[in-house]
Amino acid sequence: MYRSHTCGELRIEHVGQTVTLSGWVAKRRDFGSLSFIDLRDRYGITQLSFNEEYNKDLLEQARSLGREFVIQAIGKVTERSNKNTKIPTGEVEIIVEQLNILNISLTPPFTIEEDTDGGDDIRMQYRYLDLRRDNVRQNLVLRHQVAKAVRKYLDEKEFIEVETPVLIKSTPEGARDFVVPSRMNQGQFYALPQSPQTFKQLLMVSGFDRYYQIVKCFRDEDLRADRQPEFTQIDCEMSFVEQEDILNLFEGMVQHLFKEVKGLDIGTLPRMTFDDAMRLYGNDKPDIRFGMQFQYITELTKGKNFPVFEAAETVLAICATGCATYTRKQLDELTDWVKRPQIGAKGLVYVFCNADGTYKSSVDKFYSPDDLKQWATQCNAQPGDLLLLLCGDTKAVQKQMSELRLEMGLRMGLRKKDEFKALWVIDFPLLEFDDENQRWHAMHHPFTSPKPEDIPMLDTDPGAIRANAYDMVINGVEVGGGSIRIFNKELQAKMFKILGFTEEDARYQFGFLMNAFEYGAPPHGGLAFGFDRLCSLFGGADGIRDFIAFPKNNQGRDVMIDAPSVIDDKQLKELGVNVNS
Amino acid sequence: MYRSHTCGELRIEHVGQTVTLSGWVAKRRDFGSLSFIDLRDRYGITQLSFNEEYNKDLLEQARSLGREFVIQAIGKVTERSNKNTKIPTGEVEIIVEQLNILNISLTPPFTIEEDTDGGDDIRMQYRYLDLRRDNVRQNLVLRHQVAKAVRKYLDEKEFIEVETPVLIKSTPEGARDFVVPSRMNQGQFYALPQSPQTFKQLLMVSGFDRYYQIVKCFRDEDLRADRQPEFTQIDCEMSFVEQEDILNLFEGMVQHLFKEVKGLDIGTLPRMTFDDAMRLYGNDKPDIRFGMQFQYITELTKGKNFPVFEAAETVLAICATGCATYTRKQLDELTDWVKRPQIGAKGLVYVFCNADGTYKSSVDKFYSPDDLKQWATQCNAQPGDLLLLLCGDTKAVQKQMSELRLEMGLRMGLRKKDEFKALWVIDFPLLEFDDENQRWHAMHHPFTSPKPEDIPMLDTDPGAIRANAYDMVINGVEVGGGSIRIFNKELQAKMFKILGFTEEDARYQFGFLMNAFEYGAPPHGGLAFGFDRLCSLFGGADGIRDFIAFPKNNQGRDVMIDAPSVIDDKQLKELGVNVNS
Repeated sequence: MYRSHTCGELRIEHVGQTVTLSGWVAKRRDFGSLSFIDLRDRYGITQLSFNEEYNKDLLEQARSLGREFVIQAIGKVTERSNKNTKIPTGEVEIIVEQLNILNISLTPPFTIEEDTDGGDDIRMQYRYLDLRRDNVRQNLVLRHQVAKAVRKYLDEKEFIEVETPVLIKSTPEGARDFVVPSRMNQGQFYALPQSPQTFKQLLMVSGFDRYYQIVKCFRDEDLRADRQPEFTQIDCEMSFVEQEDILNLFEGMVQHLFKEVKGLDIGTLPRMTFDDAMRLYGNDKPDIRFGMQFQYITELTKGKNFPVFEAAETVLAICATGCATYTRKQLDELTDWVKRPQIGAKGLVYVFCNADGTYKSSVDKFYSPDDLKQWATQCNAQPGDLLLLLCGDTKAVQKQMSELRLEMGLRMGLRKKDEFKALWVIDFPLLEFDDENQRWHAMHHPFTSPKPEDIPMLDTDPGAIRANAYDMVINGVEVGGGSIRIFNKELQAKMFKILGFTEEDARYQFGFLMNAFEYGAPPHGGLAFGFDRLCSLFGGADGIRDFIAFPKNNQGRDVMIDAPSVIDDKQLKELGVNVNS
Repeated sequence: MYRSHTCGELRIEHVGQTVTLSGWVAKRRDFGSLSFIDLRDRYGITQLSFNEEYNKDLLEQARSLGREFVIQAIGKVTERSNKNTKIPTGEVEIIVEQLNILNISLTPPFTIEEDTDGGDDIRMQYRYLDLRRDNVRQNLVLRHQVAKAVRKYLDEKEFIEVETPVLIKSTPEGARDFVVPSRMNQGQFYALPQSPQTFKQLLMVSGFDRYYQIVKCFRDEDLRADRQPEFTQIDCEMSFVEQEDILNLFEGMVQHLFKEVKGLDIGTLPRMTFDDAMRLYGNDKPDIRFGMQFQYITELTKGKNFPVFEAAETVLAICATGCATYTRKQLDELTDWVKRPQIGAKGLVYVFCNADGTYKSSVDKFYSPDDLKQWATQCNAQPGDLLLLLCGDTKAVQKQMSELRLEMGLRMGLRKKDEFKALWVIDFPLLEFDDENQRWHAMHHPFTSPKPEDIPMLDTDPGAIRANAYDMVINGVEVGGGSIRIFNKELQAKMFKILGFTEEDARYQFGFLMNAFEYGAPPHGGLAFGFDRLCSLFGGADGIRDFIAFPKNNQGRDVMIDAPSVIDDKQLKELGVNVNS
C-alpha cells in the first residue's frame, strides 16, 4: 500500500493517527535542526516535518531529497504550532518516522508553480511537467466537470450518445480534410471528420430522435493562434423539432452548465437577429457585457463641407462613457491603432463632451457646437463622455467600428473575465456570395434550411433568404451554432444546384445522405458547441491551448512527442503511397 | 410544434385528451370501414384509428400512406376495445382528427422489424434503415447506458476523463498504424493511436493520479470477423497503486455495471493464475460458466501398448456430464470436428461410463475395464457420463482440448447467454519467445512491470518471469486487461534491451516517455476494457458489429458511405504524396 491518505485529506481531526502519504517533493525548507517538506499530489499539499532531535538520520535523508523526487512518508499527524490558513491541510503536519524514495528526479527545466519561469516552448516540450502545475491541471479538471455537466443535462433530456466513425469519406467542400491511406484498398483514402454532420443526420433518419456526442473533429487548416488541427465538439441533433425547441433546450443546457460549473445564474438569453447584430455591433458575435452600441449619424454629418464625411456612405459613432478625460496623446495612439492594417480605418474623429456642457472635437473647423450637440444627443452622451467616429462603406466601417468598440471595452475594463453574458444570434443569411469565385456559398452548410417564408426567393433573390440557423455567443465568442436541416429531397437538390454542385458532384459526395432522405427523413435540426472554447471561456482564459492536455503548436506539431515524423519506407510501400521528393 | 407526446407515452389516464404525435408508419391494417396505423418513434408505438363513419376523407388519406412515411396525427386519446397487452401504450388509441404527411418514403429494401428479411450486405448498405429496427437501436441504447454507468462509477472514484490526442507519432512496434500525411510538414506523417498507452503514463507522471477515457483507437490489421479498424476502449490508469488496488477497483466497476445495466449481482471475481488457466482450461480466457476442467491422465494410460498414447507427451480428458447417451454417429461427427485443420487433433478417444457401471471405450483393445475405471475416477465421472480424450504435445493438446471443451459446452447448452461469470486471470508471463524471429516479445507491452521477486531472472531465465499483468475475462471473452507499469528508468532500459530495441530505437520511439521518467515518475498501473466487446457481451450477442452505429466490413469498408475512396490529385499534391501505380 503506497498511501493511506492523499496529500489533500488530513485535518485537525486526524491528529494522533499514523498515516502513509506518497507524492512529490514540492519544496523543502531547512532551518538549523529542522526541515520541512511540502509533499504534493493532485489533491493538495501536506507538510512533512523532520527534527534533528527526533531522528537525525531521517533529517539528513530528507535533506538529500531534490525537487520533484517521488517519496513515501510514514508518520504521525500532529497539530502545527505555526498554522497555514491558506491550505485546507494547513493545521497539521506529519512527524515523519519513515521515508522511502520511490523515484528520483532531475531538476525540472522550469519551476512547477502557478507563476512558472518556463516559456511557452519549453513548457510544451515538457508538457508532462507543465501539467503538474496546479493551474494547468485545474483547467483540465474544469474540462472534465464541464463534460460531466453536459452529459448530465443531455442524459436527463433523453439524448443518446452515439459514436460516429472517425475513418470516413473525404468531401472536398469546406476546409481541408486530413486523409488516411487505406492499405487494404490501395489508392483509396479515408478522411477524418470535420464534424459528424452527415452521420448525425442519418441517425435522425434512423429515428434516434435525440443524439449527442462529445467528439474529436479534425481540420487541416493553416493554424491561427487559437486553432488546433484536432478539436472537440459537443455535437447534438434532434428530430420533430422547430428552431424554438432547439433554442429552448440548449439555452437550458448553458444555464445548467453555468449553474453546475460556475455557480452562476446566467438568466434568459436575449435573441438578436443577425441584421441587428451587424447594425448595432458590426459583428455576428457581439460582446454584450457592455453597451457602446453603434449610432448611425450619417445624416447629421452631411452638408457641412467636411469632405471625408461627405464622401462616406456611413458615419458611425460610439460613446465611450467617462472618457472625455482622454489626453491628446491617448487619442493619437488610438488613431494610430485604428489605422493599423489589421483594422484599416483612414482616421478617427472624436468629440469631447466636456463636463461643463461644451463640446470639443477634432472636426471643429466643419461642425458647430450645435452640430456636435446633435451627434451627442443621438448617442445619448452625457457630459464627461467621449464620442468616437469612423466613416466609410457601411460593411467596412461596421467591421472597423466593431474592433474599436471591443478595444475600448478592453481599455475601459468592461470585458470582465468573471462576468458572463450569453445570447442567441438568429436569422442568419442562408447564403453568402463569394466574389472571387462568383458563386454562392452556404453560410452555415449545405443542409441548412431556409426559413419557409423565404423559400420563394430561392429563384429571385438568394442573398435575401434567411436561414433557420442560430449561434450561441458568450462574451463575444461564438461557442456554438446550428440549424434546422433540410429534410425534403427536392429542396436539398435545389440547394445543391444553387451552391453550384452538379448532380453528379452532389451524388458522389452526399449520395448516401440523399438516398437516406428518400426513406422517410423526419424534420430535424441541431447544433454543435466548440468544447475547447467553451472550457476556456469557463476558465476565464483567452486561448484554448491550456484546456487541451496535449495540444499542437501553430505548425501542427506536437513538440513533446515530435509528431508528425517520417515513417519507414516499408510502411509507405505497404500503404501503396510514396512521398514526393 | 410537431408533437405533444411521443409514441411511447400515452396511457389509459390520457383518455379524453387531444394530442399530437409524429412518427413513422410502421404498419397499416385495413378492415372494411376501418383502418389502423401503428405509428412508431424511438419511444414506442401508438395505434392510430380511422373510421369511415367518423371521417371518410381521413380514412382515404390514411389508406394512401406507405410504410415508413413520416406523419403527424392530431386526435383524441380513446380507450381501445381490443387492448394489446404486449405494448405499454396498448390500452389506448388515437381517433385521428387531422393528418399531415411530413415526408414520404420509398418502400424500404427490407422490413423494419426485429426479424428482418434483409441480409447482412443490404442491411449494411442501408444502415440508417437497419438502425430503425428496434433491436439494433436497443443495442446502441445499451451501449449508451454502459458508458453512463462506467462514467458514474469512475467519476465517483475521483477519476478525471482526459482526452489524449488522435494525431500522434507512428511506432513500428505492435500492430500496423494508420497514418496521416501532414500537409504542413511535408514528407512527415501522424499516426492514429492504437491506444493512449504512453499518454496515460505521461498523465501519471504529471500527477493526474486517476485518469480514464472512453476513447477511439485504431489498428490497421487484416480484419477477422469480429475486429474493426476503429474500436473503442475504456482506458484507465492510476498512480501509487499495486496490482491489488487495481483489481479491487475494477472488480467494483464490473460489479457496478452488471448491477446498473443488467440488474445482476455478479459476486466476487475469482482469480486464476495464467498457469492454472492453461492447465485446467488450456486457455488464458477460460469460460467458467461450466466446469469440465482438464484431467491429466497421461500416467494412467502408459504401459498398455496403445501406441498413440505411448508416444504422447500428454493425455488429456474431460468429462461430459450425462453424455453417455451419445450415439456412434454423434461421436464420429465429433471426431471429424476435432480433426478439422482449425482444431488439428489426430483423433478422439472416448469412454462411455454406462448407467450400469460398466465402461465402453474406443480403445477397449488396449485398456481393461479397470483401466477405464481409473480414468473415470480421476475425472470424477459418474454413470451416464462420457469421457473425451485427446493426446499430443502438451501445449498443442491443451489448445485442442480447450476448443473441444468449448464446443461441448455449447452443444450441452452450458454457455448460457443470460448467465455471466467473470474472473481475473493473473500472473501472466512477462515475455514470450518468438520462434520465427528468434527474439523475446512483450506479452502485454514493453512497459509492463515484472513481479519484483522475478526480476533477478531477467538475465538468467526471461521466459520464467511473471508480469504484474492481469486480464478480466467474462464468459470466455477477454474484456479487459492491464498491468503495473515499469516506472524505473534503468529497469525500462533493460526491458527494451531484452526486447531487442537498440538504445537509438528505444529513444526514437519512446524517447519522450523515457525523458518523462527522469523527472519523478510515480508507481502506476492501469488497464483498458474493450468497450465494443463489453457492450456486445451485455447484449448477449456474439459479434460487436451491431453494437457499433456505423461499422466497417471485413475489407475495412463502410459500404454505406463508400469509404475509403479515391481523392483529388490536387489534394494529394497539396499533401506531397502520390499513389503508387
